[in-house]
Amino acid sequence: MKLYTWGRAPNPRRVLIYVAEKDIELEVVEAGEGAHLNDDYLARYEGRMVPMLELDDGTQIGEAMAICRYLEEAYPAPPLFGVNRVDRARVDMWERRAETEGFAGAAEVFRNATPAFAGRGLPAFEEPIEQIPALVERGRQRLARFYRRIDRQLADNRFIAGPRFSVADITALCVVDFATKAAKAGLPEDCANAMRWHAEVSARPSIAG
Amino acid sequence: MKLYTWGRAPNPRRVLIYVAEKDIELEVVEAGEGAHLNDDYLARYEGRMVPMLELDDGTQIGEAMAICRYLEEAYPAPPLFGVNRVDRARVDMWERRAETEGFAGAAEVFRNATPAFAGRGLPAFEEPIEQIPALVERGRQRLARFYRRIDRQLADNRFIAGPRFSVADITALCVVDFATKAAKAGLPEDCANAMRWHAEVSARPSIAG
Repeated sequence: MKLYTWGRAPNPRRVLIYVAEKDIELEVVEAGEGAHLNDDYLARYEGRMVPMLELDDGTQIGEAMAICRYLEEAYPAPPLFGVNRVDRARVDMWERRAETEGFAGAAEVFRNATPAFAGRGLPAFEEPIEQIPALVERGRQRLARFYRRIDRQLADNRFIAGPRFSVADITALCVVDFATKAAKAGLPEDCANAMRWHAEVSARPSIAG
Repeated sequence: MKLYTWGRAPNPRRVLIYVAEKDIELEVVEAGEGAHLNDDYLARYEGRMVPMLELDDGTQIGEAMAICRYLEEAYPAPPLFGVNRVDRARVDMWERRAETEGFAGAAEVFRNATPAFAGRGLPAFEEPIEQIPALVERGRQRLARFYRRIDRQLADNRFIAGPRFSVADITALCVVDFATKAAKAGLPEDCANAMRWHAEVSARPSIAG
């Protein structure tokens, strides 16, 4: 079982944190060189993104949460997708919001504002995708709404989906850190609940270590 | 248990098809009036989107696939999230691609091109979000890549994630139909595998009926 990653890219980071939380041993393979994925990797994997988990029989599983869910079945403890039916639904709901709202917003800012990503306004395409400058501001709006939303949620909850750490925290943390470092769009100071959560989660050995 | 929907909107449609496939009886509540969601619904549900499943104790579950997964635990037959560990990973992977690539592309075209959605370039916001005309073309590019991708996948597979109908088919079908009707960006004629799949899936009683 090999996990393909790429430097500090935020999507593989979700899986690396998950794997560290579970103490799962697997071979991690770097699929990128500088600002690009290897040609060999791109030719071998039609998804053309990281992360990708390759099983010993050659089966390729893409999408960070599909990989984590696959691992969860073999490594159920500690549970990171919830502990009962309603809890699992809450984790799933918040994790997906973090991806489709938070991650999408951070990626819009990053990909459309970063000079090194000129012509790569979207990932995985073979043809050039021009940057859209107006998406930088709209990405910030999406992120701002996501931040307010998790801030409200974290007023009454220790973690994103409730009282227990879950994959929803992993995705949300990777959104915040990616947005902070790559898009200069970190948590606003007035999101005190989210700031408290971010400090606590960042100190976990899977993340700090 | 109440499911909140809105006319022919594509995201609630995913859940309605799922529920029909499973023969699940639940109360369906219309949350929209014309081109807007009801003020009452918007005030009651912080997610400000449909679908939303409200349990008898008041718990609100948003996000179409979180709702379906929640239902899957109580109504496991027929399985629509895969039948073994690798199969579940494939369903999860393809369903998420359909959402983050296909759906995102169709929504970019629709929301930024439709005059009635001026000021609503993104869903759920309270403040106006201006349309970005350049996103219409980019959305078409995302959709085109998604269509080519499922066309290749469907060359060797009867359904999106393999030999069995799954939630990946439901999301992909709702993407195609939404893009066709609302964004004039349906499947290209040269995607013969995807056209064959679309015809077969559209004839299922849960969809045709």
